Amino acid sequence: MKVELISVGTEILMGNIINTNAAYLSRECAALGLSVYYEVTVGDNPDRLEKTIKEALEEVDIIILTGGLGPTSDDLTKEITAKAVGRNIHTDEHTMQRLKEYFTGRTNITANNWKTAKVIEGATVIDNHNGTAPGEIVSLDSGQQIILLPGPPNEMIPMFDQQIKPHLRALSDMGIYSKMVKVCGIGESTAEYMIRDLMEKQSNPTIAPYAKTAQVHFRVSAMAKDKAQADEIMAPTINRLKKEFGKCIYTMDEATELEEVVVDMLKERGYKLVTAESLTGGLIAATIVNVPGASDVLEESFVTYADRTKAQNLGVLEETLQKYTAVSKETAIEMAKGIQKRTGAQVSISATGIAGPDGGTKEKPVGLAFLGCCIEDKVFVKELHLKGNRRKIREMVVVNALDLIRTSLMD
Amino acid sequence: MKVELISVGTEILMGNIINTNAAYLSRECAALGLSVYYEVTVGDNPDRLEKTIKEALEEVDIIILTGGLGPTSDDLTKEITAKAVGRNIHTDEHTMQRLKEYFTGRTNITANNWKTAKVIEGATVIDNHNGTAPGEIVSLDSGQQIILLPGPPNEMIPMFDQQIKPHLRALSDMGIYSKMVKVCGIGESTAEYMIRDLMEKQSNPTIAPYAKTAQVHFRVSAMAKDKAQADEIMAPTINRLKKEFGKCIYTMDEATELEEVVVDMLKERGYKLVTAESLTGGLIAATIVNVPGASDVLEESFVTYADRTKAQNLGVLEETLQKYTAVSKETAIEMAKGIQKRTGAQVSISATGIAGPDGGTKEKPVGLAFLGCCIEDKVFVKELHLKGNRRKIREMVVVNALDLIRTSLMD
Repeated sequence: MKVELISVGTEILMGNIINTNAAYLSRECAALGLSVYYEVTVGDNPDRLEKTIKEALEEVDIIILTGGLGPTSDDLTKEITAKAVGRNIHTDEHTMQRLKEYFTGRTNITANNWKTAKVIEGATVIDNHNGTAPGEIVSLDSGQQIILLPGPPNEMIPMFDQQIKPHLRALSDMGIYSKMVKVCGIGESTAEYMIRDLMEKQSNPTIAPYAKTAQVHFRVSAMAKDKAQADEIMAPTINRLKKEFGKCIYTMDEATELEEVVVDMLKERGYKLVTAESLTGGLIAATIVNVPGASDVLEESFVTYADRTKAQNLGVLEETLQKYTAVSKETAIEMAKGIQKRTGAQVSISATGIAGPDGGTKEKPVGLAFLGCCIEDKVFVKELHLKGNRRKIREMVVVNALDLIRTSLMD
Repeated sequence: MKVELISVGTEILMGNIINTNAAYLSRECAALGLSVYYEVTVGDNPDRLEKTIKEALEEVDIIILTGGLGPTSDDLTKEITAKAVGRNIHTDEHTMQRLKEYFTGRTNITANNWKTAKVIEGATVIDNHNGTAPGEIVSLDSGQQIILLPGPPNEMIPMFDQQIKPHLRALSDMGIYSKMVKVCGIGESTAEYMIRDLMEKQSNPTIAPYAKTAQVHFRVSAMAKDKAQADEIMAPTINRLKKEFGKCIYTMDEATELEEVVVDMLKERGYKLVTAESLTGGLIAATIVNVPGASDVLEESFVTYADRTKAQNLGVLEETLQKYTAVSKETAIEMAKGIQKRTGAQVSISATGIAGPDGGTKEKPVGLAFLGCCIEDKVFVKELHLKGNRRKIREMVVVNALDLIRTSLMD
């Protein structure tokens, strides 16, 4: 089935935002076995938007429009789509009710907000669980479909993933099924080199690598009639990946993040975790706390950015700080041991390093970091040499810290 | 002048690469005072590419094509463009010579490489200093221009910047200049409603709102001969925004983030900041630490997720926790006061609340949060009612916490 993606928004044409929605939807359509023929971006201009929709209707089976569903006067997608297909728009009572609940307790709800409750006649309304404007699926007599989605990725992506994908999958009898192999602790190019023979001869299944911060994810996809057939097609490739990457694979579930794996492992063992953070400034704890139910494993944590606070709060010895400096294996170990002792948590993780842009020296350059991890009476330590800006270095330290907890727990 | 950007490449339609070229060219065209009407991505398909070029020729003055200029058989842009405008292609001797020099000393030059020396008859050839395929500017009798650029950004961007931009600038004597007004503490729709008259009648300058997490940014842009004239055109609008949003404007500098403003204000006053975080789990401290030089203002911070740790580390009274619960104004204030007293920092911020998905009750639903802020002996408190998933709620609390520090410092 042929698809056209239409992104609506002058801010894209002005180059103020990068159109990541188009890339996401392209990838998802490909995975569903749908062929994207065109991607068009058009501004918040009624005539040009109408022309674009009408031209698309001459060529493709499915049009997916993103953006322009909001409450402001330059949000026109619904109105122009209705006009292009000769339908009216009317107020959807269900959405009106949802908006009333959404705005409960808020004052100053301006009149324009209720505009988002208007939908195209005959459309299937798709609830927005992360915002106000609903999505819509408009089925035409020609058999064509127009799908309207909100523009903000944090609204569009969950809506597509949970509500539109199953609908599109039902339209096609061959589907693409995929598995995700998430790897931490091996660089992207090394990981790809290890399986270069698979990468070169791929057809069905295919393997697509996605470089993430200090991680690589491999998506293995098979075109098949059903999930059982897909599993069979993918099995040899999956087994090879397991053999190559072993313990570095932290999950094979698409939706699972590294921090969830760590929280689950800690829960299983009945362990509490505490962090002692210097350059990460609380980001390791904050990442753990992002997992629902994190309170079962994390009760408290400490940001010790200044040397003084490493001594006062964690009991790092003055001699250690003077002899080895704060950015050293020795300090990382004392931070982890000190916080473990102070709090009684079975597991502790410490991070110290130089995130830059200043503070680097020839011996201790920007990007040098040390992690310490205590699991009951065992101590693990890791030295990192990272490249990137301040933000990237800190994010890479967080991923490495989570992975050090994971691998240490497996030891 | 009206522009259409056409990106050629099936790899974009498959979602394998993100189309950063389109975002770059959009931004550059806007800065040159050119209006991008459409961005279209089309695959390596002769018929669809020809149709796209022909449709564009009916609408715009300048077409910029990227991609499909390489040596392989699916690189078709030159051939199809020539066909669409009724011209031939021929070998460009200058490019042939350049390729010979480029390949000097290399073996295994496959025959298809010489294909890149072919250009459209009558085109101005643009040397590629970072690769083989040259760019081309094709001027038509209609006065329209078609510009062909290579797809790889490391070839396209320097070619555009050094060789195409001067050419385009000469076509127009006006440019676009813009200013950013960043607002925190007013919801997007309310903020837009407050200036709806400006939004509706905008032409020059224009106002574009961008919704960010718990913030709205307004970009004011003027088309003008030079910066001085642009400033004059924008002045009444900027003054109106200042009058409407007042203290809620935290910066008018495009590159400045809220956390930088907070760090600068603390530095100016010689204050140290300490955080006491429950539901944010360290994310307020981590956001502050993202600012280079944050060590001047933040020395330490505390994540107190469990009630016990709020009492132990921050001195929150057991009675307070029992009477009002951990998610209360009273606890937020005691957290902020307690950590200020313990560390001696002049400024403290505390955050407690329910990020969900579990833990909400009818009286204290998911999304309820309290912030406490002490500035020396003054105490500020803020109650929040937020909507969204766990991650979004926590991010909104962080922005609100930073803004509470900022506004409290101004009091």
